[in-house]
Amino acid sequence: MTERATIGPVRSEVADSPFLRACRREPVPYTPVWFMRQAGRSLPEYRAARDGIGMLEACRRPDLVTELTLQPVRRYGVDAAILFSDIVVPLQAAGIDLDIEPGTGPVVASPVRDARAVEALRALEEGAVEPVAQAVRLLVDELGGTPLIGFAGAPFTLASYLVEGGPSRNHERTKALMYGDPGLWSALMDRLAGITAAFLVVQVRAGASAVQLFDSWVGALSEADYRAYVLPHSAAVLATVAKAAEAAGRTVPRIHFGVGTGELLGAMREAGADVLGVDFRVPLDVASGRTGPDVALQGNLDPAALLAPRPALEDRVRAVLDAAHGLPGHVFNLGHGVLPQTDPDALARVVDLVHAAAR
Amino acid sequence: MTERATIGPVRSEVADSPFLRACRREPVPYTPVWFMRQAGRSLPEYRAARDGIGMLEACRRPDLVTELTLQPVRRYGVDAAILFSDIVVPLQAAGIDLDIEPGTGPVVASPVRDARAVEALRALEEGAVEPVAQAVRLLVDELGGTPLIGFAGAPFTLASYLVEGGPSRNHERTKALMYGDPGLWSALMDRLAGITAAFLVVQVRAGASAVQLFDSWVGALSEADYRAYVLPHSAAVLATVAKAAEAAGRTVPRIHFGVGTGELLGAMREAGADVLGVDFRVPLDVASGRTGPDVALQGNLDPAALLAPRPALEDRVRAVLDAAHGLPGHVFNLGHGVLPQTDPDALARVVDLVHAAAR
Repeated sequence: MTERATIGPVRSEVADSPFLRACRREPVPYTPVWFMRQAGRSLPEYRAARDGIGMLEACRRPDLVTELTLQPVRRYGVDAAILFSDIVVPLQAAGIDLDIEPGTGPVVASPVRDARAVEALRALEEGAVEPVAQAVRLLVDELGGTPLIGFAGAPFTLASYLVEGGPSRNHERTKALMYGDPGLWSALMDRLAGITAAFLVVQVRAGASAVQLFDSWVGALSEADYRAYVLPHSAAVLATVAKAAEAAGRTVPRIHFGVGTGELLGAMREAGADVLGVDFRVPLDVASGRTGPDVALQGNLDPAALLAPRPALEDRVRAVLDAAHGLPGHVFNLGHGVLPQTDPDALARVVDLVHAAAR
Repeated sequence: MTERATIGPVRSEVADSPFLRACRREPVPYTPVWFMRQAGRSLPEYRAARDGIGMLEACRRPDLVTELTLQPVRRYGVDAAILFSDIVVPLQAAGIDLDIEPGTGPVVASPVRDARAVEALRALEEGAVEPVAQAVRLLVDELGGTPLIGFAGAPFTLASYLVEGGPSRNHERTKALMYGDPGLWSALMDRLAGITAAFLVVQVRAGASAVQLFDSWVGALSEADYRAYVLPHSAAVLATVAKAAEAAGRTVPRIHFGVGTGELLGAMREAGADVLGVDFRVPLDVASGRTGPDVALQGNLDPAALLAPRPALEDRVRAVLDAAHGLPGHVFNLGHGVLPQTDPDALARVVDLVHAAAR
């Protein structure tokens, strides 16, 4: 493709971007910032573009994925774009019958709860997510010097959706399977790790500059359970991504995040990510004490602070920057996704404040 | 009342019960056990007794409260009963227009979000919860040597319901008020602390042997925010209860629990409870390291383990007992409430195992 001719120069601009430098724990001219769920319902242009189009359908349209991914970059001047997608996209592409119901979330037609259902899970064929690869290629061309972060849900979170059949507050069936049949659990997690890794590798090969592995629900586990039942599988995903990047002659930082994972940070570090996302409950300096200095940290403004009056919001932004002061690598972000009712102007103000702050 | 004549001897039996001894960190013949939400939808006799009766209506009927509170004591032989109630009962009794909608939870007609709404909050008149006091008196008579635990929601959790207008995943309006208008927040929490304390004092005066202050949602806060915005108010509630018990010439252990509060245990200890409930995410020995030895611990089997096959459940029960071994005081419980789909036989098995375990 002729657009590929531009990749040489653009790639060096991307590689030197504050975001990727911070991920590699190199000096930066200013703290880079992006927001989890920056592309989403808080933006009027997002609601307009998505009008009448279902979530999974939107994720399958390269032009729409490109537009939705670019919207927050245009509006806020954030330092990274994140691929607009959903964690169940690779599951559906691997043949699982599911849909995303507005107001509910993913709903799986036949929950996966026994050996037969686990054995029936197919691997992800690269061709099945070609629209995603295409969107990544379009985005790399459109984004110029702004890095694109690839995106996938981690095996535990995917397992919870499959076993519960949908969103769950307590993940009780998932845990019952995990505690009660560790062999079957491991087989399920192996397959999901394969699907997740394949989905991320597609994005890396198509040109994503970094990836984020979201383990939304893993904070529901104790550290011992995380280590026994989850860590090896998340580590396998992250290792596969690193190998694929290496084979392509590139360094692709891997970010790993989960909600409510303060207690798990030390263990999650062992999964091998280059950047750990930190929930808003734990100050970044405390988090760094748990992870050690050999990993960059991403976070961790409480998204609820964006609903507070401006002076209170600004105090909280400064508190995050203060807690991160002197850390080897810091990517400013929220400690959880942007809430739908967030005023985009509040996010714009945060970007300005973070960029203006002295390092 | 003539029944009161029996209170002398019964009271000494209660005071020497394993549950109250463990709360006071005294030696016990076996580890006492009860379950958060032991009275509830997991029991067929509960579903039968509640059939067609709304939650708040049930909480206002002393005979029904008594029956529902006694059901798990009869079935399981647990070492303590906990008053069947709901955290919004004292709010409604203080004049707030709210209801509990099945499948949703508490819904507040006019959310409390400004100074006028805070100033309109009335104190709780003792007479307004007379049915609760009556239920406590009936229960003390019925329970004989089994202690009754009184029950209230803590100010932060009540504030979240009032500010959000109902259950909330992210407590964003609550936090926005807390961060944005600390003076108004403090005024709101003062009033709620007064209502909560009054509700618990009514139960103590009517004969409750212990109380549990539930702060269901406080795990949504960082330790710094907990200390700044919540701890003084929870401490005020617990201090008022202690004073009322002292005035009545009794010692009434105060239990304090919140979900996902592993990071807050040290700070929650400072609120002054005699027993801290520990979420299932943190092993009890680790929790004890955070609280110090001057407090008893309650917990912390993952309620999801009750849905696992019996051998896996039994392993997990033993792991909790092992982690608690040598702690100064341990009340066995779950690390969160009983899930509605729990098989009552699994809970019965846990009681047997805990009672049979050597100390």
